[in-house]
Order: sequence, then structure tokens, then C-alpha cells
Amino acid sequence: MKFGGTSVAGPEEIKRAAARIVGAREGGARVVAVLSARGKTTDELVEAAYEISERPVAREMDMLLSTGERVSCALCAMAIHDMGHEAISLTGSQAGIVTDSSHTKARIIDVRAERIREALGEDRIVLVAGFQGVSTDSRDVTTLGRGGSDTTAVAIAAALQATVCEIYTDVRGVFSADPRIVPDAVKLEEVSYEEMLEMSASGAKVLQLRSVEYARNHAVRIHCRSSFEDAPGTLVLPEEETMERPLVTAVTHTDGEARVTLSGVRDEPGVAGRIFGALATANVNVDMIIQNEPVGDDQLADLSFTVDRDELATAEETIRSLGDVSNDVLKDERIGKVSIVGAGMRSHPGVAAKVFETLGGSGINIEMISTSPIKISCVIDADQVPKAVKALHEAFDLGADAVREEDPTGTEHRPTVPS
Amino acid sequence: MKFGGTSVAGPEEIKRAAARIVGAREGGARVVAVLSARGKTTDELVEAAYEISERPVAREMDMLLSTGERVSCALCAMAIHDMGHEAISLTGSQAGIVTDSSHTKARIIDVRAERIREALGEDRIVLVAGFQGVSTDSRDVTTLGRGGSDTTAVAIAAALQATVCEIYTDVRGVFSADPRIVPDAVKLEEVSYEEMLEMSASGAKVLQLRSVEYARNHAVRIHCRSSFEDAPGTLVLPEEETMERPLVTAVTHTDGEARVTLSGVRDEPGVAGRIFGALATANVNVDMIIQNEPVGDDQLADLSFTVDRDELATAEETIRSLGDVSNDVLKDERIGKVSIVGAGMRSHPGVAAKVFETLGGSGINIEMISTSPIKISCVIDADQVPKAVKALHEAFDLGADAVREEDPTGTEHRPTVPS
Repeated sequence: MKFGGTSVAGPEEIKRAAARIVGAREGGARVVAVLSARGKTTDELVEAAYEISERPVAREMDMLLSTGERVSCALCAMAIHDMGHEAISLTGSQAGIVTDSSHTKARIIDVRAERIREALGEDRIVLVAGFQGVSTDSRDVTTLGRGGSDTTAVAIAAALQATVCEIYTDVRGVFSADPRIVPDAVKLEEVSYEEMLEMSASGAKVLQLRSVEYARNHAVRIHCRSSFEDAPGTLVLPEEETMERPLVTAVTHTDGEARVTLSGVRDEPGVAGRIFGALATANVNVDMIIQNEPVGDDQLADLSFTVDRDELATAEETIRSLGDVSNDVLKDERIGKVSIVGAGMRSHPGVAAKVFETLGGSGINIEMISTSPIKISCVIDADQVPKAVKALHEAFDLGADAVREEDPTGTEHRPTVPS
Repeated sequence: MKFGGTSVAGPEEIKRAAARIVGAREGGARVVAVLSARGKTTDELVEAAYEISERPVAREMDMLLSTGERVSCALCAMAIHDMGHEAISLTGSQAGIVTDSSHTKARIIDVRAERIREALGEDRIVLVAGFQGVSTDSRDVTTLGRGGSDTTAVAIAAALQATVCEIYTDVRGVFSADPRIVPDAVKLEEVSYEEMLEMSASGAKVLQLRSVEYARNHAVRIHCRSSFEDAPGTLVLPEEETMERPLVTAVTHTDGEARVTLSGVRDEPGVAGRIFGALATANVNVDMIIQNEPVGDDQLADLSFTVDRDELATAEETIRSLGDVSNDVLKDERIGKVSIVGAGMRSHPGVAAKVFETLGGSGINIEMISTSPIKISCVIDADQVPKAVKALHEAFDLGADAVREEDPTGTEHRPTVPS
């Protein structure tokens, strides 16, 4: 069981999480719970670091940030004790989460779960501080990067061959679209790892991408659900275990991207490598890339790519530091992206055409396109994102109303009402 | 170097501590700095625990509280890096502070300082999270109890055979009396371990008792000084290294005590053992104990003892739980204690008489007395404590004015003016 920051934000939330953990234990399960830092704790610690230093040392950043999850675990263990069960909190290091030495973005390389197994064998509930581990070579505290607690939970579930990895969060599951934009969006009962990966990569915030990858690679069943109500959420499973899927599963979106266009790039081998190599070194995450055919005698091309808006300044600076790669660097800070994701798409041609027609029919201009076998993404003006999401959700009949037409009871797909 | 909570309270204080550490390094010293939690952090964490549970499990309390010092160390390491020096923060466990398993009041049983030595050998400044260690048997995080960071610093200084253990605090050193009560109290240049122990035990808050004991047992020189100014503070040394001392070194006081009187206690073997055994089990710290001669045929005696006012309720409850030990339990919540401490007292009779005369002459009633070879303590009404401290400080000529009469330059003993 993994509880996110909002699920352990204050004493009441921590007690609620403890009650859920105890409920699972009393239901016969052996339970390991991974906890995130309380509410805004991590943000506050980051702020404290930047009050001290403009460029905090990564090793010390990890020592600093790793304290937040420990606080959550210790408090939750106290609550569980009061409910009459033995609980023990473990740091990432004590829990055997072994990582590489990339401070602030470490990768798990091993889970040495002896101490967890030992505690479970003594009939204890085990609480593990999420988001952190210990580096093999220097025995230093490391952190896995934002949202790393999901990965901790999945990694421990894999190591223990757990029946399920339950990710408790402040939403009720994975939806066919963001319910704040599309009121009749439905909660999905199950999605495949591949669909979830595409959805996480294209804007669904409910699960961290890396944790889904880890789950797929180790066949860990994820149950993504609300910590504030009892209704089941969404299962993330191997595709062969999912039921027959409709053509399209969900519409996702982001509206926090920006586009950089390099005009007049010399079309010769190695230029793109230099550009994107430099961006990777600067830790800028590039999403889509488009290069048009070079025209004219000078063989100059235009190259566009999208990045997180937060990383635009770094991206621009990086490009300019390369000096001679293009005639000009243009930027558009107001772009968004809508995507449709669905495993059923693989065997059905014509989905892309329907996407383009739908957006065109709504007067939305498509600026860039990228596709995968189970996803189609379109870059559009940021202001038009809500309109595009609504139009696609309706065009592919993903809403509760649409489902009701086919299934008169509608109970299976209708979203549950929050209690 | 050890920095207390007020010395690392905010970003400015942390940078000031970092600058001091860097200054010492640049002066040629190899530096290990022990840091406390920032300002009110520990109080806030304790509060968070009590919001969850009325009786937080001790093991989890330690996991919780140990995070505060780690935050301080990580932030200070960042500040030192920005000043161009390599620094590394270590948890108590990483620093090799090995303790017993008494959670929330663990005792240091070993300091395995290999990792500190290694880092010093690599020309790094080492920052160690104070107040915490790791238990030998269960590899759990332990804490040393309030003020334990002083002990961490002294223990590391002993293990490394450090030249000096500098304790930075928000006062300028050890004074002949509390300067808030006695304006002409002087900063002492040096005191012996024995004097410091008596002073800590009788109300001087500047150094934690356990750390002074540890320093005495391992001959660690302590320099207790202000983190906000450069003037030297007070050295705590073996008695043979101190200069000829005056009869009395300082007047100390407490005004936060309470007295419990059991009237009609059966005067038979084992009763006192039961009473104080039960109080010890309930973790009540008993200071003074007085029992009068039993009178009359029934052989009933009166027994009085003093405790911290905070522990009065627990003490009373404990005594009542014993049921049949006395006819009645009376309490006085408003008592204080004044003490005079001085190694010179050993060889000079008549000091006690002068104390009693001085208090009597000021119209102060002495309710209980306890003595050691270098200390005389009197329990008095709490409201009369300031008057008693002033009278004793003057009677024994401890003030700056008094010293000036003997030493016309007065420079040696005059308190420095805070900058």
C-alpha cells in the first residue's frame, strides 16, 4: 500500500491511512506501506535549501529531502500502535532500497528486502519511507526524484512478490479524461501497462511514469485508488489480463509545454546530435521533435521541439551556448498537447484521421503531431486544450452518457460519487 | 564545534555557523561540527507526535525526532560548499555513534569514527547530526534525550582526541550568576569539570549535565562560547589545569521545582525503597530528599522530596498508586533552589554558615538544604529566588564591581559587551 502526500497531510489523514492499513492486516493480508512526505513538506525543504544556496549540493539535497518521508512513517507507526498492532518504520536504507549514486534522481538497482521479510515474519506491519534509498558505493542517502514513492512501492511489491500494489491518492482512479474538463469522464476499471505508460507520458498525473515501467517489467499489479473512499479504483495490468478494450481508452492532455524552433539549421550529419546531446546534458526533457525538409540551395532546415515550460529558459540558454547551429531561435510559450491512448488502436486504422477531423471540425489548429502504436498526440494552442479534450472525448464515445447508450444499466462504467 | 538550535535557527544563522566552521578550517584545524535541530523543530515534531498518539511508541519517536538534526546538517553542508570547501553531512548512525537500545534516552556506548576519519583524511569538513545514534542490537535509530547534541559533540571529540570541543550557544559562556538577575555577574574564564557538573545539576542551563560527565571521564576540553560574537567564552577543564579559584565560583538557581511531602510514613525498612523505586520507574527525577526523625509511638515519619514542577503530577499519581505508604500527600508547587558552587569550598569551612546568614539576613526562609563537597543548595520560596541569588552573589564578592576592587584594570573579569 502506498500513500501519497495528500493522504498523510495531517494527523487525521495519517490516522485514516493507519486505519486502512490495519483494516488490510485484519483482513488477513501481510502489509507493507510506503509513505510519502506530508503535504507540502518536500516543497518547504526545497525552499529551505534555496534560502541557503542557489545551487544546493545534490548529496546534501538528498540528506535533506529524505527526512520528510521518515516523519510520515514514524507518525503512522504511532497511529497503528494505538490501534493495537505492531508496526515498524524503516528508512529506505533500512528497507534495503539500493540505488545508484545519481543524487536527487537515483535509480533503484536492487531491493534487499531481508529486514522487511523479517519484520513481516514477526507479524509486524512494515512502513517504508518512500522516495529514497542508499547508494551501493558510498552508503549515502539518495532520493529517486519527485514522485519516487510510487516507484519505491512497486519495487518492494516486486521484491516481495506481493499480490497487489495499492497506490492510494487523492483521486478515485484513472479517468477517461480529466473530470475537471470533462464532467462525464468515467473512471476506468482497468488499463494495460502500455496504455498507462502512454497516459502518464502524455499528461495523466495519477501514476509516475517510472513506477509504471517498473511494474510492467516485473509484472506488478497496481491498484490505483482513493484514500478518501472505499470504492475500487483502477487496476493496471498486463494487456493479456485486460478485458476487450474499446478503440480508445482515454484522452489526456498537458498545457504546460513550450516550443522552441530553430530556423535555418544546417542540414548536415551531427547537428541534431549536438543539439539534443547538449539538452540532455542540461537535463532538459525533450518531448516532441519535428524537422522539415531542407529547402533551397543553402540546405537549411527548420527544427522544432517541445519541452516543459519550466525548462524553456534552460533549453534556450543551452541552444544559444552552442552558438552556430542555426540562424535564429524562436519560442512559443503557450502550447498544449492533447493525446488519445488506447491499446485497441493498434488493429484499427482510421483513428488518426478521426482525431484530425474532430480537432479541425472544432476549429483547432494542429501544430505538431506524434504517434505511437497506441497513442496519437497533437500539439495545439494552450488555450484550446479544454475544448480539444472535450471534443475528442465525445467523438470517441468515452463518456458515462455514451456508455449508457450501449449498456442500459451503466453501473459498470459510471463514475462513483465521492462520499 | 557544536552549534545549538538557536545557532542554526534560520538561513542567516546557518550561514554564520558555516562561516565559523570554514574560518576554523582555514585557520588550519580539521573540523567536525555537530548540529542540533533548527530552532523549534524538535518541539514541532514532538507536537506532531502527540497529535497522533497520547503515548507515542519510543522507537518511532526516535525515528521522527532524528530528522531535525539531519536537516540542519544538510543545509549547513550546502552553505559550506558555497564557501568553497568540501563538506559532508553524516547521520548519527553514519558517524558511528553507537548506543544502547533505550529509545528517547539512549546512552552512547561506542563511537566508531572510521567514516569521520576517512572524510577528514579527504580534507572534508564533517557535519554530524547531533542527539542521535544507532542501536547495536536492532540497528534502529536512537536519540540521546533533550540536549543530547552536547554529548554527541563531546563523544566525537573524545574519539578523535580533538584539541578542543567548542560548544556554540546563544550565551557568551558560563557566568557567576544569571545575568538577567544579577547585572554585574561576570563571565567565568574557566571552571573545572566538577564545578560545571554541580552548576549544571543546580540550574545552569548552558551545558547538558551528561556531556560534562562524558567530558570529565574522557578529559575533553570544552570551550563554551557564543555563536554571535568572537570573544572567548568559558573553558571547562580538569581541576588541576584551572588557576587558583576563589572560594565560590558561581551562584546558580532554579525556580521550576515542586515539593512533595508524605506525612505519616511508616518508618520501617523498605518503604523509602518502594517509594523512590516507583518514582524511578515512572521516570521522575528526584532532586533533594529529606526525612525527619519519626516521632511518637506509631513510629511515623514525614518524608519530603523535590521534583521538576513538570513531573509533579506524575510523581503524585505514582505515590498515590502505592496506596498505603503514608497518611497524606501534600505538595508545594512554588519552590525554588539557590546553590553556590566552588571547588575552593572543599578546604574552607564556614561557607555554609555564611550562606545561611546571608539568606537569613535577607529575610529568606530556608526550607531544605543539601550539600556536596563543592556545593551548597537551599530550597526556598520560588518568589524569593532572585533576591537570594543577588544576596549570595554580593556576599561572596562574585560581581564585576567586586573584582574591580581587587584588580584595578578589571579587564580579565569584566564581562564583554555583546556586539
